[in-house]
Amino acid sequence: MQKLQQLYEGKAKKVFATSDPDLIIQEFKDDATAFNGVKRGQIAEKGIVNNQLSCHLFRYLESFGIKTHFVEELSPREMLCKSLKIIKVEVVMRNIAAGSLVKRLGFTEGTELPYPIVELYLKDDALGDPLMNDMHAALLGLASPDELEFIKQQATKINSILKDYFLGKDLKLVDFKLEFGKHKDEILLGDEISPDTCRFWDKSTNKKLDKDRFRQDLGNVEDAYIEVRHRVMGV
Amino acid sequence: MQKLQQLYEGKAKKVFATSDPDLIIQEFKDDATAFNGVKRGQIAEKGIVNNQLSCHLFRYLESFGIKTHFVEELSPREMLCKSLKIIKVEVVMRNIAAGSLVKRLGFTEGTELPYPIVELYLKDDALGDPLMNDMHAALLGLASPDELEFIKQQATKINSILKDYFLGKDLKLVDFKLEFGKHKDEILLGDEISPDTCRFWDKSTNKKLDKDRFRQDLGNVEDAYIEVRHRVMGV
Repeated sequence: MQKLQQLYEGKAKKVFATSDPDLIIQEFKDDATAFNGVKRGQIAEKGIVNNQLSCHLFRYLESFGIKTHFVEELSPREMLCKSLKIIKVEVVMRNIAAGSLVKRLGFTEGTELPYPIVELYLKDDALGDPLMNDMHAALLGLASPDELEFIKQQATKINSILKDYFLGKDLKLVDFKLEFGKHKDEILLGDEISPDTCRFWDKSTNKKLDKDRFRQDLGNVEDAYIEVRHRVMGV
Repeated sequence: MQKLQQLYEGKAKKVFATSDPDLIIQEFKDDATAFNGVKRGQIAEKGIVNNQLSCHLFRYLESFGIKTHFVEELSPREMLCKSLKIIKVEVVMRNIAAGSLVKRLGFTEGTELPYPIVELYLKDDALGDPLMNDMHAALLGLASPDELEFIKQQATKINSILKDYFLGKDLKLVDFKLEFGKHKDEILLGDEISPDTCRFWDKSTNKKLDKDRFRQDLGNVEDAYIEVRHRVMGV
């Protein structure tokens, strides 16, 4: 299996073809963006931390029967994955009010939600990834109603698994974003699971240990990513 | 039954108490606002047209068993209504892509939707009436899940009834907003149904005959309102 041409460069990752048409390589960059690309920067070692954490968490989820695109950790920044036809829906799970729940809907930051909530966003940079409801997603032909239901159920399961796991590492899983895609008619969890895509707060102090440190200029961004890796993986 | 003190002044209506605590009076103004109050103006006779049309349409819906707050047309600008505890959800029904479906989600204006879609917005001027999903509405305690389901069903029924009705008047009902409230534990349709709250396009030419003429500075705003009344009520 050989690394071939670059297929795509995103905000935080590059994707490469391989000699096996069913497999691709995700290469994690240190580039950081926020507010739909308006704010840009670098977070040293972020690509390494995010790749290592994502590999670890995909393995953990697989052990619960969650099917993911993860195949193998190739190097500190490289993950071998099953190739996916990405479903253009970002699924956000929320346990504690933060981010757009505060800004758009007026929740008080830090409010523990009585039950986890699921949100769907249209994956479209030009439109700024707008919130949508189930009917919008169906109407846009992003997924069939059954597929959408499956994705929401998977996201809810993943949240249950990860919320408890992180709490055991003294981290509150505030909210996070998931992406799914199709590989040979099977829907798999794709993308990454990292402080770029999750909000993590320290269990006791509520200190933010995720990309909000970059978004909100809170400082010690690199340390936060490394702290999460240390708590989760012990390294 | 006497008209008593003003209870509330909104963007397009004033609400007055009456000597009967179960009844209020809606008085329709000529004031027009758009973009959450940023654009302001007056549309001559709008209050009269909207009151007359709303009374007419509430009567029509009642004849199909839809329960509304409408009691009686008191004067050209005044409607006697059952008092409501307003449910802070704006329900939008859409048949043809326009407005936020185009701006937020990238639909092409004028696309006929394969089936009507329902959207929920948080009725909150300070937040700009943001879109929400069913879980947000439940979480905000705006209505119980059963109440929300009932409201969505009513909105869907009302759309079926009105879409056909307007088509018989050579008007396409593109989309419209409904508000509901509780009166003695019963959920009633409230507010108004008018070119302020509906998009109407001419069946043949797609000429806009609603508040979009004001929003988009298309001219002949007054004429459009009067044209809709004429087509619907013959006056």
